[in-house]
Amino acid sequence: MTHSMKTLQPLFAPRRVAVIGATDKPGSVGRAVVENLAGFTGHLLLVNRKHPEVLGRPTLARIADLPASTDLAVVVTPAPAVPDILRECAVAGIGAVVIISAGFKETGAEGAELERELLEVARAAGMRLVGPNCLGVMVPASGLNATFATAMAKPGNIAFLSQSGALCTAILDWSFQAGLGFSAFVSVGSMLDVGWGDLLDHFAADPATSVIALYMESAGDARAFLRAARRASVRKPVIVLKAGRTEAAARAAASHTGAITGSDAVFDAALRRAGVLRVDTIAELFQTADLLATQPPPPGRRLTILTNAGGPGALAVDMLVRHGGVPATLAPATLEALNAFLPAPWSHGNPADILGDAGPERYARALEILAADPGCDGLLVILTPQSMTDSLAVATALEQVATQIDKPLLASWMGGQGVEPGRQALARAGIASYAYPDTAARIFARVAVHLEEQRHQPVASDPVPLSAPAEAEACVAFARAEGRTLLTEAESKRLLAACGLPVVPTRTAAEAGDAVREAEVMGYPVVLKLHSLTLTHKSDVGGVRLNLVDAAAVRTAFHDIREAVTAKAGAEHFAGVSVQPMIAPGGWELILGASTDPQFGPVILFGAGGVLVHVLEDTAIDLAPLTSEQAHQLIARTRIRRALAGARGMAPVDLDALAERVAAFSTIPLRLPEIAEMDLNPLRVSEAGFVILDARIVLKAK
Amino acid sequence: MTHSMKTLQPLFAPRRVAVIGATDKPGSVGRAVVENLAGFTGHLLLVNRKHPEVLGRPTLARIADLPASTDLAVVVTPAPAVPDILRECAVAGIGAVVIISAGFKETGAEGAELERELLEVARAAGMRLVGPNCLGVMVPASGLNATFATAMAKPGNIAFLSQSGALCTAILDWSFQAGLGFSAFVSVGSMLDVGWGDLLDHFAADPATSVIALYMESAGDARAFLRAARRASVRKPVIVLKAGRTEAAARAAASHTGAITGSDAVFDAALRRAGVLRVDTIAELFQTADLLATQPPPPGRRLTILTNAGGPGALAVDMLVRHGGVPATLAPATLEALNAFLPAPWSHGNPADILGDAGPERYARALEILAADPGCDGLLVILTPQSMTDSLAVATALEQVATQIDKPLLASWMGGQGVEPGRQALARAGIASYAYPDTAARIFARVAVHLEEQRHQPVASDPVPLSAPAEAEACVAFARAEGRTLLTEAESKRLLAACGLPVVPTRTAAEAGDAVREAEVMGYPVVLKLHSLTLTHKSDVGGVRLNLVDAAAVRTAFHDIREAVTAKAGAEHFAGVSVQPMIAPGGWELILGASTDPQFGPVILFGAGGVLVHVLEDTAIDLAPLTSEQAHQLIARTRIRRALAGARGMAPVDLDALAERVAAFSTIPLRLPEIAEMDLNPLRVSEAGFVILDARIVLKAK
Repeated sequence: MTHSMKTLQPLFAPRRVAVIGATDKPGSVGRAVVENLAGFTGHLLLVNRKHPEVLGRPTLARIADLPASTDLAVVVTPAPAVPDILRECAVAGIGAVVIISAGFKETGAEGAELERELLEVARAAGMRLVGPNCLGVMVPASGLNATFATAMAKPGNIAFLSQSGALCTAILDWSFQAGLGFSAFVSVGSMLDVGWGDLLDHFAADPATSVIALYMESAGDARAFLRAARRASVRKPVIVLKAGRTEAAARAAASHTGAITGSDAVFDAALRRAGVLRVDTIAELFQTADLLATQPPPPGRRLTILTNAGGPGALAVDMLVRHGGVPATLAPATLEALNAFLPAPWSHGNPADILGDAGPERYARALEILAADPGCDGLLVILTPQSMTDSLAVATALEQVATQIDKPLLASWMGGQGVEPGRQALARAGIASYAYPDTAARIFARVAVHLEEQRHQPVASDPVPLSAPAEAEACVAFARAEGRTLLTEAESKRLLAACGLPVVPTRTAAEAGDAVREAEVMGYPVVLKLHSLTLTHKSDVGGVRLNLVDAAAVRTAFHDIREAVTAKAGAEHFAGVSVQPMIAPGGWELILGASTDPQFGPVILFGAGGVLVHVLEDTAIDLAPLTSEQAHQLIARTRIRRALAGARGMAPVDLDALAERVAAFSTIPLRLPEIAEMDLNPLRVSEAGFVILDARIVLKAK
Repeated sequence: MTHSMKTLQPLFAPRRVAVIGATDKPGSVGRAVVENLAGFTGHLLLVNRKHPEVLGRPTLARIADLPASTDLAVVVTPAPAVPDILRECAVAGIGAVVIISAGFKETGAEGAELERELLEVARAAGMRLVGPNCLGVMVPASGLNATFATAMAKPGNIAFLSQSGALCTAILDWSFQAGLGFSAFVSVGSMLDVGWGDLLDHFAADPATSVIALYMESAGDARAFLRAARRASVRKPVIVLKAGRTEAAARAAASHTGAITGSDAVFDAALRRAGVLRVDTIAELFQTADLLATQPPPPGRRLTILTNAGGPGALAVDMLVRHGGVPATLAPATLEALNAFLPAPWSHGNPADILGDAGPERYARALEILAADPGCDGLLVILTPQSMTDSLAVATALEQVATQIDKPLLASWMGGQGVEPGRQALARAGIASYAYPDTAARIFARVAVHLEEQRHQPVASDPVPLSAPAEAEACVAFARAEGRTLLTEAESKRLLAACGLPVVPTRTAAEAGDAVREAEVMGYPVVLKLHSLTLTHKSDVGGVRLNLVDAAAVRTAFHDIREAVTAKAGAEHFAGVSVQPMIAPGGWELILGASTDPQFGPVILFGAGGVLVHVLEDTAIDLAPLTSEQAHQLIARTRIRRALAGARGMAPVDLDALAERVAAFSTIPLRLPEIAEMDLNPLRVSEAGFVILDARIVLKAK
């Protein structure tokens, strides 16, 4: 059995738990852990070398004295003692250890050395470690609170995994207010052994967990995380809040693609591919987890709003639409049923404003009718406390109806303490409750859009050719042999052509006479561009001349380019010119690029290209390789897609063919792993087809 | 003295207040109002025809019995009785009346008739009315609670004006939780008389008010609102939450400009021009009002973050940057001062992470040092409750320091009930407190960016020429005489040229021979376009032929256009062609447009043009007319501005000249008010200058 296949059962479903370093010293972590574990429904054992008794419980003097079937040990001793303790645990046959102790790699080289020692011991014994430097682990259903937190989480169906111990206490504290319950609450610490991948796999399979929520500061083993996230998100929603969106320092990069893709954008693409719902704020993490934990998943994006005041309903619609939701259209039968009992001035549409004097019965009956409408994917009930409103009675009336509704039910009882009893009744009824109606609508929209996107995620992958054509390999080898990492434009195009992509014919010429000969063969008009082994931004040094109509023009252009480059950069950068046919304008200029993310590997970029690429910022990225279906989705995430699809009477391009090309391109970095970056910009797409006008390929430094 | 100049003093600073319809009937609005007014520090009078005593207070039988100096009457009687009551109030010389009673225009024609009667009486007597159909008015400082709400707002410096009575109770309820205090709390009801304009003027001048917050459902008298908002926002912050962003149905429009500008976008532009800070959600309305009411205005966008945990600091930076804020850079002296007393592993930068064991003294000293840094425009203090954290003691320690800091101070004590005592200490210290650190950073950024924009708002207006050139008038008159609202392309260009804008020469030709003659005079290559009195989208009917190089090509193009238009639309739409020189590519295609908003009048649109205008969605709008400075700001709100400014080595265009043209264009709809819409698309801007290639003008229907 490989290491990663060992289950985390001893960690989350232990029968016997031992505290190593149990003490009754007031204010100590060791005492807090023992106190917290008092409610554990299994068997609790304490180990203390000196004192036969701690907090009224007998202790064992040595780890070796523990019964053979001890599943989990919680270690709270100072760092230097931990390796020996771990060795003893291994001998005692303990399955998992939570190391709460700090003082490891975060303190410097010595601590890092200690960590290596721990890992070695654990790996050798097949023992799993959580931490070090963490708050610990809670499993509320079994009363397991192996932490030094001041309170125990409520039982429920959310598995919460946090990389910040500091945040855990705050989150717990909030969770009581929000009424959230947890299947497990894990502070992951340094993730020396048990990491995101293990935990995602575990909770994906855990029947007590229906939502997995992560607070991340770093991805750790990025590929393991992604693979596990993909597996988990197929089974239940995975929500991620990650700090440090803007931390990514601008990377110096030789290509447009390198500059546009930043590590957070790549992380975002990776999460999308893994089917993870990414949220932006702490509040959203809660609100989203709450909706997914308490309500059935919305089958679509159409929300029906029931309210006793117009303004709050309108605010909710604004936010719903802004985040991709759709106000449900009420069916004629629904309108008829509502007309039959509502006062005449009701809004006769969605939001259904049933007026300021609405009482419990009117609310309950309207909700029942609205929920039965087949065009409704979820419902939001808004209550503003008005002079005749009994907010508790309305909430109580909804409890009854709610049990018969199999769609997501959200509510906003607007106000503070005055509507608190009503809110509590809503919580009892299993309705997701939000302080503000606009917040509720936004969370519904984000969840519904995410689930819809996930339903449309292609499952099968197009087969990826693993080897590269010999000629493409040769292009790479040739540049390497010359000690270059930069391929010339002509070499770049040759490589792409070898991989089956259409490029504009491109011939190099060292002398003006050669250039004229090439032009005559190609036919006028032509384009001349600098051919250089060293310079990559040709326009910047006056290295591009368009629309040359005869031999004289070619000659002049050749000399102009040589002069301009010599003056601006130096004669050594001029190695001749490349000659290409002038492609008539028409169609669209696009960019297609690839770069290499240190964590996630090859990344593909697509978007509006040409000189405007940085001005328009109309690009989207995804991880390589892409299936044609995924390439379609990448294209669909840009604004230029509308032009490509033939908006406003423009001639549409063949989007299937384009997606095929993009998918084919996306395999190149995997087939030729020596490639660091590729820029195809512009490539021209029109009714007539797809052709690469300029290309630049950079190899990885050796 | 004109009506609008009458002050609202009797309304908000009355000495004597009378309740008309005072009653002790349990559950009645009349009783609630009397009870609420019990705390009024002035003189309270009750009027009841039948009962000599209400709730233990003596009543007067008739309004005529009121003392002559009664400032304010509160009316709670049924609607039909209100006009007569108002007449009696007028005779009694009462200055202002709050009509809480409902049952007016919201119930139909009869109610609307009643309203007209009320207004007539009030206007004749110079009496101001609030309502009808409102919750009433509160002035906490004087104990004036002329509402039927269940609680009185806390005194403070926020004037809150709400168009939704239903929302008022919820807002009040929340305000207690958030600890917000009000100088006045006004439910505006139907705004029959006193509207946004009056209230903004009043509270702009009110020394007890430092922030004005509005919840709007409609702008009412839009121009009066805007003028008053502009006047007010110069003196103090004005915050607006408006419901119904997405209500604006797509308007059928003959022009691109008409389709892009929607009424909410125009409202947005109007608010920006008025210096109003628009928020999107109820929560933001509170959070923003709180910051502005309790803190000095941030002088810039640079926020310094002090925290005892890294993750929450990173989340705050993410949101700060996303909303336009900037993490402050710590000066060397600041770093030195912090290094001198902080433990070595502190973060040595911003966010200043002073570690999990930070106590009150470390927090207080670090805050003092950070606040003294001249590169800091505001501070956010984050506390996560960790094992050694005393959240109350830290808050208490900050109280002392806070009094010496003259920059905005925000705090987030993370968690629920556990940190509540700390939060209360923060509130006592006058620190703006937020549940989540990312929320705090977002609100700081939005406020700082808004104030910075406002500081850069141009104050003076370029003079606007009020009359139009005779030739431009003639173009309009000619189309009118022919019963057309659509000007031909040639007419549109003539009008624009008459107004001083450069257009490409455009000659019409009814026959192929004429077209050739015009082309010969102009010089080849030329463009031929359909000339039609009826069709406006020429490309759609095959009505455009580019790059014609000789007479034969012109002839062919003429016949092709006639054939295509005849086939696709009918021969009657073909009135010949227009001949124009072919402008060489290069530079940028822009759109400049004007449309007419029913509330706000002429609106100007600027952005990336050509066929991609709807694909790129890179446009910005503002109200006409624009000064050159405002035109610069309009241009600056598009992405294409970067290309125009010469990004990445592109040749920059003369932005000053472009802004002058845009400003000149923006005066045309005011000089020629018969114009409904104008589309200049594309106009080409390059190093060489500015030229309008195509134009379309639509007149208002008569």
